[in-house]
Amino acid sequence: MLLRNLVDFEDLTRAEWEALYESCSRIIERPSDFIDTCRGKVACNLFYEPSTRTNFSFQAAMLRLGGSVFGFADPNSSSVAKGETLKDTVKMVSGYSDVIVIRSPREGAAKAAALYSNVPVINAGDGGHMHPTQTMTDLTTITRLRGSVDGLSIGLCGDLKNGRTVHSLIKALAKFEGIKFYLISPRELSVPEYIRIFMKENRQWNVEVTNLDAVMPQLDVLYMTRIQRERFTDPLEYERNRGVYILTKRKLERAKERLLVMHPLPRVDEIAPDVDDDPRAVYFQQAQFGMYIRMALLADLANQEKKAPAPVPMGGHRRCGNPSCITKDEWYLPPLTKRIGEVDYCAYCDKAVGERAEQ
Amino acid sequence: MLLRNLVDFEDLTRAEWEALYESCSRIIERPSDFIDTCRGKVACNLFYEPSTRTNFSFQAAMLRLGGSVFGFADPNSSSVAKGETLKDTVKMVSGYSDVIVIRSPREGAAKAAALYSNVPVINAGDGGHMHPTQTMTDLTTITRLRGSVDGLSIGLCGDLKNGRTVHSLIKALAKFEGIKFYLISPRELSVPEYIRIFMKENRQWNVEVTNLDAVMPQLDVLYMTRIQRERFTDPLEYERNRGVYILTKRKLERAKERLLVMHPLPRVDEIAPDVDDDPRAVYFQQAQFGMYIRMALLADLANQEKKAPAPVPMGGHRRCGNPSCITKDEWYLPPLTKRIGEVDYCAYCDKAVGERAEQ
Amino acid sequence: MLLRNLVDFEDLTRAEWEALYESCSRIIERPSDFIDTCRGKVACNLFYEPSTRTNFSFQAAMLRLGGSVFGFADPNSSSVAKGETLKDTVKMVSGYSDVIVIRSPREGAAKAAALYSNVPVINAGDGGHMHPTQTMTDLTTITRLRGSVDGLSIGLCGDLKNGRTVHSLIKALAKFEGIKFYLISPRELSVPEYIRIFMKENRQWNVEVTNLDAVMPQLDVLYMTRIQRERFTDPLEYERNRGVYILTKRKLERAKERLLVMHPLPRVDEIAPDVDDDPRAVYFQQAQFGMYIRMALLADLANQEKKAPAPVPMGGHRRCGNPSCITKDEWYLPPLTKRIGEVDYCAYCDKAVGERAEQ
Repeated sequence: MLLRNLVDFEDLTRAEWEALYESCSRIIERPSDFIDTCRGKVACNLFYEPSTRTNFSFQAAMLRLGGSVFGFADPNSSSVAKGETLKDTVKMVSGYSDVIVIRSPREGAAKAAALYSNVPVINAGDGGHMHPTQTMTDLTTITRLRGSVDGLSIGLCGDLKNGRTVHSLIKALAKFEGIKFYLISPRELSVPEYIRIFMKENRQWNVEVTNLDAVMPQLDVLYMTRIQRERFTDPLEYERNRGVYILTKRKLERAKERLLVMHPLPRVDEIAPDVDDDPRAVYFQQAQFGMYIRMALLADLANQEKKAPAPVPMGGHRRCGNPSCITKDEWYLPPLTKRIGEVDYCAYCDKAVGERAEQ
Repeated sequence: MLLRNLVDFEDLTRAEWEALYESCSRIIERPSDFIDTCRGKVACNLFYEPSTRTNFSFQAAMLRLGGSVFGFADPNSSSVAKGETLKDTVKMVSGYSDVIVIRSPREGAAKAAALYSNVPVINAGDGGHMHPTQTMTDLTTITRLRGSVDGLSIGLCGDLKNGRTVHSLIKALAKFEGIKFYLISPRELSVPEYIRIFMKENRQWNVEVTNLDAVMPQLDVLYMTRIQRERFTDPLEYERNRGVYILTKRKLERAKERLLVMHPLPRVDEIAPDVDDDPRAVYFQQAQFGMYIRMALLADLANQEKKAPAPVPMGGHRRCGNPSCITKDEWYLPPLTKRIGEVDYCAYCDKAVGERAEQ
Repeated sequence: MLLRNLVDFEDLTRAEWEALYESCSRIIERPSDFIDTCRGKVACNLFYEPSTRTNFSFQAAMLRLGGSVFGFADPNSSSVAKGETLKDTVKMVSGYSDVIVIRSPREGAAKAAALYSNVPVINAGDGGHMHPTQTMTDLTTITRLRGSVDGLSIGLCGDLKNGRTVHSLIKALAKFEGIKFYLISPRELSVPEYIRIFMKENRQWNVEVTNLDAVMPQLDVLYMTRIQRERFTDPLEYERNRGVYILTKRKLERAKERLLVMHPLPRVDEIAPDVDDDPRAVYFQQAQFGMYIRMALLADLANQEKKAPAPVPMGGHRRCGNPSCITKDEWYLPPLTKRIGEVDYCAYCDKAVGERAEQ
C-alpha cells in the first residue's frame, strides 16, 4: 500500500480500502500463513487514555503477526506521558519501534505525532474526533458477512447525537453505493445537523425514526449503541425511552433472517444477553474482525522503511480555538489549516478556525 | 491430552496427570526443544485480582514456549474488568487469543469463563476455591526430586485451617498410595472438619500434632505455610506459637538427609533465611517447577483447535447462597448444580446449595 | 565477553568496553542479522521505581533481538516488590528468566541482586549511585558520530553538582586519552569536590566556567543537563541563571560544524525546540544508540549459561551508614566492604563506612 500513516479513514480511497480488506481476508482465511509477517518488528502503543479493548485488539494483532509490543496503557502509569512533549516522546519511541499506535483524549494527536515520527503512526482514537480502525472494523464485519456493503439497509440505533462511532460510519459509507440509512433514536439524541448536511451533500438516502420495532423488518444491518442516562436533560424522559431502544430476542422475531446485529462494545443493557445466541448477533465476531483488520494494517505499516520526516516549522501565535485540540497543549506545533470552500479548518482537529483563533 | 480446560485438579485422572508430568519432564530436560512449541500462539491473562508470582509464572511459561501474552494484571488498571460482564470479556478475548488464564476473587469464575470461551481456560486461582496449578507445582516438585509421591511421609506445617494450598494438596494426594500425613499446627489452626472427613473417606493415614520438632525425623517432605497474626483470637497466643512453627537451620539438624522443605511463597519469617543454602530447601526450585508444569499445560491447551461452546441457557432465579460465588454478580449464569449423595452442590463454587438458595 | 553482570561501568576494562562497542556497531549496521539472537530467551525487568524511558529502551532492545520480557514497571503495581525480600524475588525470577534488569531507588541494589541470581544482572540505575547503561549510551553516541572519544573537547553544561549522569561520564572518560572538559554551570551548581579530586588524580584537563556562550566555539561535544529551580537556595538566582544555560538556535551559530549536542532526556526547556532540526542536535539519536548498546549487552548476557551463585554468608550486625544503601532494608545482606587506601567503602553503595557504621 501507499499509506504511510493511518490518521483518518477519509484519507483512504475506496480502492485503497479494498486492497486493505483483501489483505485482511487472506489473513482470516489462513492466519497461520502470517505468523512471521512482523517477525523482528516492534510496535509502540502509546495510550494517553485507557482503552483496554482497543489496546488488546492492537496487541493481539501485532502478536499474531509474530511481532512484539511495548508501551503504556494508561498515562498515569508512565512518566513519559506526563513529563515531556508529545513530540519528544514520539521522537524517542520512533527510534525504538517500527510502528506507533496512539490513543489520546486530544483531537488531532495522531496527526501531530505523524509530523515527527520516523515510523508510521496509527490513530487508535483521538478524543471525539476520529477512530478509523473502529470504522474499518465495522466495514470489515459487514463486507465479510454480507459479501458487500453496497445496497444495504442499515439501521443506526441509540444515541446518534454523541457517539463518534456512528458519525464516522456514516461518513465512511459515503464511499459506497445505494445504502439506505434508518436513523433510530429519541428526538433529543438524533444526529447532529452537520451529519444531516453531510448526508444530503452525499445523497445518502435516510429516514429518521423514533421506533426500532417499526423499521426492524426493513433492516440488513442493525448497529446498536448505548444511551447514557446523563445525556437526557429530563431523567423521566430517559426512563420512558430506555426500553424502546433495548434489543431483545422478541424484537428480533420480525427481523430478516440474514440481519446483522452489531455493537462497538462494551454493551451495558442495550442488547439483552438472550440475543447473544441468535446467529444474527455478530458483535463478538465484529470484535474479532477488528483484530484481523488491524493485523492487515500492521502487516503493511510495520514493514515500511523508516525515514526521518521533513523538518517541521515551529508553532507561531495563531491557534485553533477548540479547547480539546492537541494544539492547545503542544504549543510548538505549526498552526496548520486546510481550506474547504470559504472556511479554514484546523488540520489537526478539523474544527473551523474562524474568529475564535487567537492572534 | 483430552483436557479442554483446567478448572479443577480433581478433573484429572491419575493417568492424565502422569501424562502431563511426563510432558513437563521432557521440557525440564531439554527446554531448548520447546522454544517454538507455542510459536504464533497468544495467551490472554485476565487477573481480576493481582497475583504477581502466579502471573509471572504463567507469562514466563508462555514466553519460553515461543508464545506471547497480553491481558491485565490488576482489575483497577483495566476498564474491561469493571465495565462489562465476565461473559462479554471472555467472548471478546477468546476471539483474540488461543488460551485464557483467569485469576479471580470470585469462586467458580474459571468454570463460568469456560462456558463462554472458544479457547481453553486455565484456572489461576478462584478465590478460596481452587488453584490447580499450585497443586501441580507441588506434585511436580515432589515427583521430580523424590522419583515418586507414593509412600512418602509428608508434613504440612503452619496454618492448616485457612490456606487453600494445603487443602488442595491433601485432596490431590488421594490419587496416590501409601502417603502418611503429619498435620503440624496450633490447635486453633488445625485442618477443618471437612478435610478430616475427606481423609477418613479416602483412608489417608494422618496424625495431628502441635510440635514440628517432634515429628521432624519422620518426614520426607515438610510443606511450610505462613501463620498470620490476625488468624489468632488472642494475640498472646500468636506470640507463644510463633517460634514453634518457624523453621531454622538448627531444627533441620534432626531431619532426614533427603527431606524436601517446600513453601508456596512468598514467605515472611516462617523459614529463616539461613535455611536457604541447605540443599534440602527446595522452595525456589519449586517455583521454577511451577513454571515448567505450566509450560506443559500451555503447550497442550494453547495448541488445541478453537471451537464455539454449546449455547448456554440464561440464568434463572435460583442462586447459590455463597456470597463469594461467581453467580452472585454474574446473574445471567445458568444455576448449575451437581448432586453428590443427597446434597446439591453449586457447580461453580462447590458449596452445598440447600435452603439458602433464593427462590 | 567475560562479563557476568553489569553493575558498574568501572568494572569494564577499556578493551572490554571496546569489544561491546564493536558488537553494538555490528547491530547498528545490520540490525536484521540479530532478530533471532535472543530467540527463546526471556528478560525479567524489575523496576522498583518507575523509569519509563529506561524501561522502554531495555524492552525494545530485548524484543528486537527476538527475546521477550516480563516484569513490573512500578513497585506499586506489584505485590512482589512490597511483600518479600529482594533476595527472594531475585531467587524466584532467576528461575524464570535468562537475565534480570533491575532499577531501584536503593544504592547497591543491583550488586545485592547479583549475589543471589542464577542469571546475569544488569543495573538499570540504583538511586544516585550508578546508571552504567546511560554512560554506555553516551560513549556509544560520541564514538559512533565522531569516530572516537579520544582527544575531544567536551562541554558539560547545567547542574553539575547533582546529576549522576555527568559524574559517571567524567569517570568513564578517564579510560580515554586527551579529553578536555569544559565544566559550564552556575557557581552554586558546580561539580562536587570529589569529582575535582578524581579529575586531578586522573590528570583530566578541565576548566570551570559560568558562561556557555564563551566556550561554545571550542566544543566538540556539548552535553546539556537540566537545572531544577529547587536546587537554588535563592529563587531570584534561579531566574537570573536560567537563560544562560538554555541552548537556542542562536547560541549554536558560533559552534563548530561537527559539534554534538547531547542530552540524557527528558528535557524540559534547557534546549529550545528550534534546535531539534539542526543536524548537530543528536539527543534523539542518542536515545536510539542507548537501545543499540543495550541490545549488545543483552545479546551477550542473556545467552550465558545459568549457574547457581556461591552460597552467601548471612548479614551480621555491622552496617553501612548510608541511609539510601540497599543494606538498610535488606538486613540479611553480608556487610561487604572494599578497602581503598586507608578507607573502607561499602561494597554496595561505595560510601565510606567509617564511624557511622553501627556496631
